[in-house]
Amino acid sequence: MHVVPPALDRLINDFAKLPGIGQKTAARLALYILRRPESEAKNLAQDLLHLHASIHLCRQCFTFSESDPCGICANTSRNTRLLCVVEEPGDQLVIEKTGAFNGLYHILHGVLAPMDGIGPDELKVRELLARVRSGTVEEVLIATSSTVPGEATASYLVDQLKKTGVATSRLACGIPMGMDIKYADEHTLAHAIRARQHIIEQV
Amino acid sequence: MHVVPPALDRLINDFAKLPGIGQKTAARLALYILRRPESEAKNLAQDLLHLHASIHLCRQCFTFSESDPCGICANTSRNTRLLCVVEEPGDQLVIEKTGAFNGLYHILHGVLAPMDGIGPDELKVRELLARVRSGTVEEVLIATSSTVPGEATASYLVDQLKKTGVATSRLACGIPMGMDIKYADEHTLAHAIRARQHIIEQV
Repeated sequence: MHVVPPALDRLINDFAKLPGIGQKTAARLALYILRRPESEAKNLAQDLLHLHASIHLCRQCFTFSESDPCGICANTSRNTRLLCVVEEPGDQLVIEKTGAFNGLYHILHGVLAPMDGIGPDELKVRELLARVRSGTVEEVLIATSSTVPGEATASYLVDQLKKTGVATSRLACGIPMGMDIKYADEHTLAHAIRARQHIIEQV
Repeated sequence: MHVVPPALDRLINDFAKLPGIGQKTAARLALYILRRPESEAKNLAQDLLHLHASIHLCRQCFTFSESDPCGICANTSRNTRLLCVVEEPGDQLVIEKTGAFNGLYHILHGVLAPMDGIGPDELKVRELLARVRSGTVEEVLIATSSTVPGEATASYLVDQLKKTGVATSRLACGIPMGMDIKYADEHTLAHAIRARQHIIEQV
């Protein structure tokens, strides 16, 4: 005997497969949708059905886009000499939101993970090197995460990019803005001390 | 110019409308679904489309169910003398999972919230009183939340149920099992002291 109706149970299990959603949250979401008007569930279903059909990879930077090339690659006001390499399209969204970057992007679609069989050929590395060799890029900002696989991927890319003669850079690491140093982890703090930036007094 | 493709943006906004899902989590979920095979998105969409069509309220206890009466109301091995009143079907699921309750349920579908215009007529209160009057119920366990509106609803129900002559009870309040009392909030601790249970030594 089911206490959870099968149609509800199926939706709970669907939600529980999503990252960061446990069984309890999945049940809460499914029950919420059941309490709301049916039109909202239909809306969400339609948007899910259209998702893959509408969105493809930009052939230049490999981000998710409805147009090809994508809006950023097609935007002539962007700085084509600066290329930012990120792991995932989500990382690109976060960087775009800062408004601090006006160059182009290159999406790797992952990080090197030899244990999982993910080498350079599984990422968009060959495409990155070809793009740097053929194009106008003068600096590659490698914005992979500051994690072990992210750093390993960055090191590998620096090695490969050296051969092309392009300049490479990494995002600065240190204490998050506005954070009390009491709460900074010791690795970050140690790095922030070693990478301290000298203050140049303005006259 | 959109950096987020509209089809992806629509799905992110759908997810962000769900309770406890902010814009960042919504973006993470939508990007995850986009990276997974299209069949998984279609599956989730189908389950959403079937949800409201398959599930109705049980006419006896008002829980969500595909059958009417629901599986619990129809189960002849349940104790029909004990009735547990809960706010939402989700609360019933949690209680069922404990395996500690073998009676029947009554779902209120909310709590009293006069400021939001939710009075007894907006909840399944009349149905509860009719059910208690006409049936075999000897005890009503009022399992509304231990919040201000939950307690207010419980008080109101106790008053109303008094007239029917049925026995009423509330879930016990106190220190959560396994919790260090250092971490208990002071209201709970004060209640746990006042409601202390005397130990009866077993001979």
